[in-house]
Amino acid sequence: MKIDLEKELAIVLLSGGMDSAVCASWAKSQDLNLAALHINYGQRTESKELQSFHEICKFFDIEIKLIVDISYLTAIGGSSLTDMKIEVSKAKLDSNEIPTSYVPFRNANILAIATSWAEVIKARKLIIGAVEEDGSGYPDTRREFFDSFEKVISSGTIDTNIQILTPLINLSKREIVELGNLLNVPFELTWSCYTSSDKACGECDSCALRLRGFQQANINDPLKYKIRLDYQ
Amino acid sequence: MKIDLEKELAIVLLSGGMDSAVCASWAKSQDLNLAALHINYGQRTESKELQSFHEICKFFDIEIKLIVDISYLTAIGGSSLTDMKIEVSKAKLDSNEIPTSYVPFRNANILAIATSWAEVIKARKLIIGAVEEDGSGYPDTRREFFDSFEKVISSGTIDTNIQILTPLINLSKREIVELGNLLNVPFELTWSCYTSSDKACGECDSCALRLRGFQQANINDPLKYKIRLDYQ
Repeated sequence: MKIDLEKELAIVLLSGGMDSAVCASWAKSQDLNLAALHINYGQRTESKELQSFHEICKFFDIEIKLIVDISYLTAIGGSSLTDMKIEVSKAKLDSNEIPTSYVPFRNANILAIATSWAEVIKARKLIIGAVEEDGSGYPDTRREFFDSFEKVISSGTIDTNIQILTPLINLSKREIVELGNLLNVPFELTWSCYTSSDKACGECDSCALRLRGFQQANINDPLKYKIRLDYQ
Repeated sequence: MKIDLEKELAIVLLSGGMDSAVCASWAKSQDLNLAALHINYGQRTESKELQSFHEICKFFDIEIKLIVDISYLTAIGGSSLTDMKIEVSKAKLDSNEIPTSYVPFRNANILAIATSWAEVIKARKLIIGAVEEDGSGYPDTRREFFDSFEKVISSGTIDTNIQILTPLINLSKREIVELGNLLNVPFELTWSCYTSSDKACGECDSCALRLRGFQQANINDPLKYKIRLDYQ
């Protein structure tokens, strides 16, 4: 997607995971120009995610890219994603506990950066693949949080009306897989696993949610896994 | 101030400028334990501000410190504070224009970090020396913005009720100088100038606002200046 001056510019948060890739594909279907923001917050899996980010941008012809390092979240700690001393939880999909992979207030940090960038490049939409999935339990993935953040943007910027679009917010993982399949998302380029290696582990929360989504949608996940358990 | 477990813990945003030093002194007068957060966002004056930060922490016996580099704001640009290609404005105190030193949505970036840290160290108050001073014109220094941000925190964190205290928000620079004087703030340790050198320039917006405040309060600013103009 080359820059077309008649189209509106939107920033898509592109982690490299499958949800953000579905978001990018959805945004393309809405006839938006896209700029892609990738956040490195010191997570274990950064090198795999960054590789996916570049491959997905290339796939969608996204040329305006920004990679931001907020590895201060590693210093702040409090999460197994950033603190190497905390063991990554094995998946417990039916639990209501906040998983140890929770980074406190992560999405607010990310949206603040996205808004600063949007002010400069004159984007008026931020697109984020947040999902209020059962069992994930992150408070900053609820639509209520994004509504509050839109108000913060309008009160904290100069005459700016920025919308935060969350096209996946009410979808189940199964529905995200189905939507991505309809949109021809290159799932093989995405990376969801919380541990980093050549193949996805198949056992962490994120792999388990992804695999269950594909299994429920009866669609084959083209990613390579060490273990493919039955999560249905 | 050593850590007293019976006292409530608060995070004070400590840039090294005089407003944040007055905030720290005010917080001490409120019998709070203090943790200090210093943000390096790639501004020209960082080395002077960091030196002031450490000296002010030492003065107030603040032992819990966090220094966070968000110089991604330099990459995002759009401001003379971070973009070396934009010339720093000479002070125009009566102008309603947004000064070129504006970093888009800076305070939201800073508060997001402070909130993540507060979640981990269990602080329930953030103290920031924002001032709705005539002529400064930054939209993210208005109390309305901080009220919105409190709502974002309550919707984006886990059962957390964090207050954002802005003790200086309605004060004029003159009143901040007077309050600081009453509280015995070590003004000689603080740094406000937007240009970096041994002596403050005396001509940028920040120097002009500071000097005018001291002149109106009829109190001597112990800082060394290249030029001391009459701003009254």
